[in-house]
This record gives sequence, structure tokens and C-alpha cells, in this order.
Amino acid sequence: MNESSLIEKVKKILDSKIIGDDTAPMKIGNKTLLFTNDILLEGQHFLDHFPTVHLGWKAVSVNVSDIVASGGQPKYLLVSLLLPKNKTDLVDSIYRGIAKACRYYGCQVIGGNMTASDKLGIDIFMVGEAKKFVARRGAHPKDNLYLSGPVGDSKAGLELLLMKRTVYEPFEKKLIERHLRPVVDLKLKNLIGRYATAAIDLSDGLSSDAGHLSKNSRVKLVLNAKQIPISDELKQFCIKYRHDPIGFAVGGGEDYRILFATKNRLPKTAAGLYLIGSLKQGSGLYLDKIKLANKSFDHFSSS
Amino acid sequence: MNESSLIEKVKKILDSKIIGDDTAPMKIGNKTLLFTNDILLEGQHFLDHFPTVHLGWKAVSVNVSDIVASGGQPKYLLVSLLLPKNKTDLVDSIYRGIAKACRYYGCQVIGGNMTASDKLGIDIFMVGEAKKFVARRGAHPKDNLYLSGPVGDSKAGLELLLMKRTVYEPFEKKLIERHLRPVVDLKLKNLIGRYATAAIDLSDGLSSDAGHLSKNSRVKLVLNAKQIPISDELKQFCIKYRHDPIGFAVGGGEDYRILFATKNRLPKTAAGLYLIGSLKQGSGLYLDKIKLANKSFDHFSSS
Repeated sequence: MNESSLIEKVKKILDSKIIGDDTAPMKIGNKTLLFTNDILLEGQHFLDHFPTVHLGWKAVSVNVSDIVASGGQPKYLLVSLLLPKNKTDLVDSIYRGIAKACRYYGCQVIGGNMTASDKLGIDIFMVGEAKKFVARRGAHPKDNLYLSGPVGDSKAGLELLLMKRTVYEPFEKKLIERHLRPVVDLKLKNLIGRYATAAIDLSDGLSSDAGHLSKNSRVKLVLNAKQIPISDELKQFCIKYRHDPIGFAVGGGEDYRILFATKNRLPKTAAGLYLIGSLKQGSGLYLDKIKLANKSFDHFSSS
Repeated sequence: MNESSLIEKVKKILDSKIIGDDTAPMKIGNKTLLFTNDILLEGQHFLDHFPTVHLGWKAVSVNVSDIVASGGQPKYLLVSLLLPKNKTDLVDSIYRGIAKACRYYGCQVIGGNMTASDKLGIDIFMVGEAKKFVARRGAHPKDNLYLSGPVGDSKAGLELLLMKRTVYEPFEKKLIERHLRPVVDLKLKNLIGRYATAAIDLSDGLSSDAGHLSKNSRVKLVLNAKQIPISDELKQFCIKYRHDPIGFAVGGGEDYRILFATKNRLPKTAAGLYLIGSLKQGSGLYLDKIKLANKSFDHFSSS
């Protein structure tokens, strides 16, 4: 059984219409609160030999990314720490990373839990606040599609980490840092709240997450390959290791950029945004004229 | 390093005054929301051979217990499921248990996450709502101490499960059910909100949690051994296996009863409550005249 059929099963058992977006919006008094949850688990999201110094930062960032994609400001978080008994010394660096990220993003740890565990894990529950909740559904045919920055760097960084080398070139170190310490651009929340008809954060990869947006909004989504931003470091990486940059950009995960649709073109002042495609009547995900397969990253697939 | 010194370290790093109670209260608009998090993890909170049919129910209940102890009504939850790839068939029974508990307690799953993992785990984040937040601190000398039901049954049930027998006597089945499927009395939230000066839920055990209440309220706490309620089933268990019922009642964990202090005696109409002790000027935890050691259940202790 794969992840999406498991989630479908859960939605059916719970008879829930609210489950399945980046965040769950709840109107409390006159405020719209956004709730989300994301975990980093050893063996799944990082390996034992990866440096742990940025783990706390990343665990916060992956949740902030969901809140910002919904047009919200991160406010509060609870941290559930799964901690091996022989790694209690990591508490210090993990929480220093969490504290640093909280200062950067303007949110606050209000509670949590600590449990002994075989594997290290940081499970974070985050509460945000939005003027207007932006969902994965809501994009219209003819909308423009924007991406908030270069993609594929994180996957390249991951591949470099998996090489377990002791020495890396400077551009390789940059790619590794983008994997270990993603930074979410908090300014995007205002743009998204104001202009986006639909939005999603890129955790599983551009093609996979664009697929979600297309499916949820019931529109055909066409990516313009030439417009997809690719960093100089990823270009260098692809030359050195003979990879296809577009493959990394479209198929890589964990970039934590935001993909969103707008009715009109954004003003020129919206710097750092890339118009990478458009929406059309119909269904399916296209890279130029090629239809991409409906395939998501799946924790439960056996391959 | 033990659990409480790890938590002290975290509080210091985060420079937080809010961490350390059953729930974290946040004023949102004109409402007080309560946030809490508790996990059930295979190997720590249950073993591979335990029946899993009530796991979803229990994971919700242990969080409800924290919300009710703070005087609140459970409202929303997010479920972070750690799921071994060879156990995806458990999704059905776990979520049916969660759904059943949500109907019983009047709360709703609004989101969550599913991650492949070596060990099964259900990490729940719950949001409650309260008119008035009741903390572990706030009890005064001369306050009365109430307990919401018999204690020690859950520990007896756990010991029976650890015997791995195929046949159990009827009273033993009841004890096992109290361990596997604790039920939180939701009516308590009104009593606690109205009368309690301080409260705590019994997850670690009466002596350990009474110790927290005493320490946080800076009062001496005296338990009256004769008044501590012990179920008939626990009495039978202790006769059969030659145990001391008071040891189980005071030292056992996971009963999810609520312990709370009040300024006055409760009206006779407050059925199912037991006046088991009182608070005095000073410090420390006493069972009649015997001072109990300051010892909590500790996931990170090596013994």
C-alpha cells in the first residue's frame, strides 16, 4: 500500500474534508489559525553520518515552509523529540538550532515532549496565523505559475552527503548546506496572501508538488523548462557528475521553495520570483509538451 | 543525564517560562487555547506483542487527559504516525480507534503526517479550549487534595501483559483493559475549571505527579494512605500475586486520573471523587508521616 492510498483510507475513516493541505485552517474568534506538523526522522529524512548541527533549524524550517505556503506567519510550536539514550548530548545543539530558527522566523516554542527512542527524530507541530488561508486548490485556467527560487540544489546536496567524502569543493559545500539548512523566505507570506489563488511548498519535488497543485485545483499545469531557475552550483555539480540539471530541478525534493498561481502577473518589484509556467483548462502536469507521470515521493513504496 | 535535567537544559536554551506544565495556554482573541503533545512509541510505551486494537484510542486519551487536567475541552488534533513498512495494515485499526475516541471526547482530527519508521509510534498534538487555564502551580497550604478515581490498575494491567499469557481471569482482563484503553472523565473539566487551584493528570504515577504539583505550587503535600481508592480488581491482583496495593496505587503510572487541589471541600454531588490528602506550608511529599523520595519515572534513566 502506498502513501497516498493510506492517506485516502485515513480521510475515509475520519470522514474528514479538512485533511490533505499544507496546513489546516481554523477560525478561532476573529483569527484564522493554521496548524501543521512535520517530522525529521533518522533513517528516513537524514542518516546517522550526516552532521546534526542544523537539524533543529531544518525541523523548524520545514514546518515554517507549510505555514508560509498557506499565506501565514509562524507563531507557536511544540517539539516532540525522539532521543536515543546514547545521544542525549545532542539536545543542546538541536535546541540551539530550534531557538535560532525561532528567532529568525519570529515564532516561539510553547511546549513539547521528550521520549527515549532507538532513532533520533524531531516531530514539530506548528501554529501560524493568516489573514487569508491559501490552499492547494483555487488556481484557475490562465493563471500564471511562480516559483520562489532555484530548485534541485537540495537533492544535489543530499547526493554529495551520501558520498561520505571528507573533503568537498566550495560549490559542493554550498549545495550540502542548502540540503541541511534550508531557509524559507518569510516575505513570501505577504505576496501569497495578497496575490496567490493557490500555493504549495516544495518538499517532495517540483514535479510531485506541482502535480498536487494541478490535481487539487483541477487544472492542467504546464512548466516551461527554460524558465525553471537553476543555481550556478547545481550547474557545476551536473557538469562534474554528468547529470541533467532539469532532472534534478524537476525531480529533486526538500528545496522548500514555494510554488504558487496568480491571476495576474506580479509587479516587477517582486524580486526573486520566477514565472515558470501557466495553468490551462484540463488536467495533468506537463514539462513543455511532455506529460509527466503522476508519481510522488513515497515513504512507503518498496523501490 | 536524566529527563528532568534535559528539560531544564531545554528551558534554559529557549529562555522559556511557559514550558513545563500539562498544557501551554495561549490567549487567542478572547479565547484561551491549550496546546499539548504526547506520543505512544513502540518499545517505550508498548511492546510488539501487546494488542494494537486500542492504540489509537489510548493515544488520543493521553492527550485529552492533559487538556482536562488544565480545565479544558479537547477540540482539535494532529496525528503524526510513525509506521513500519510491514505494518501498514495497522492504519485501519489505529485510525478507527482515533475516530472513536474523537467522537467520545468531542474533538476532531484536522491534520497530520505519516512517516515510515522502524518502530510504530503515534505522536499526537492536541488543541483544547478553556475558560480558565488551571496549572500545576497555584495550590495553597490548607487546600484539599482530590483524586478522580482508583489508581494502580494500569500498572497491574501492564504486569499482566508482560506475563505474555494466553489466558487471563476476568478481573485480570479488566486490569489489562484499564492499561490498554484508559478513559478520561470529561466532566472533570468543569469541576477543575470551577474549583481547582492546581491540577495535574496522573501519567507517571500518583507519587511522581503529586510530587510535581507539590514542587510547582511550593507546598507540602500529604497523602492519606487509607483514603487512596483501590479497585476490587487491584485488590484481587495483589492477593494473587502477593503485591502491596498501596505500592501499586502510589507508584503505578498511566492511570490518567486527575489530581487536583481545592480551597474548599467539594459539594457531595461531585461523585467519583476522593479526598485523599491535603496541602500544608512547607515542601515535600508525604504518605501519612513518611517522606517519599523525589523520584519520577524517567525514560532516560539507565535502570
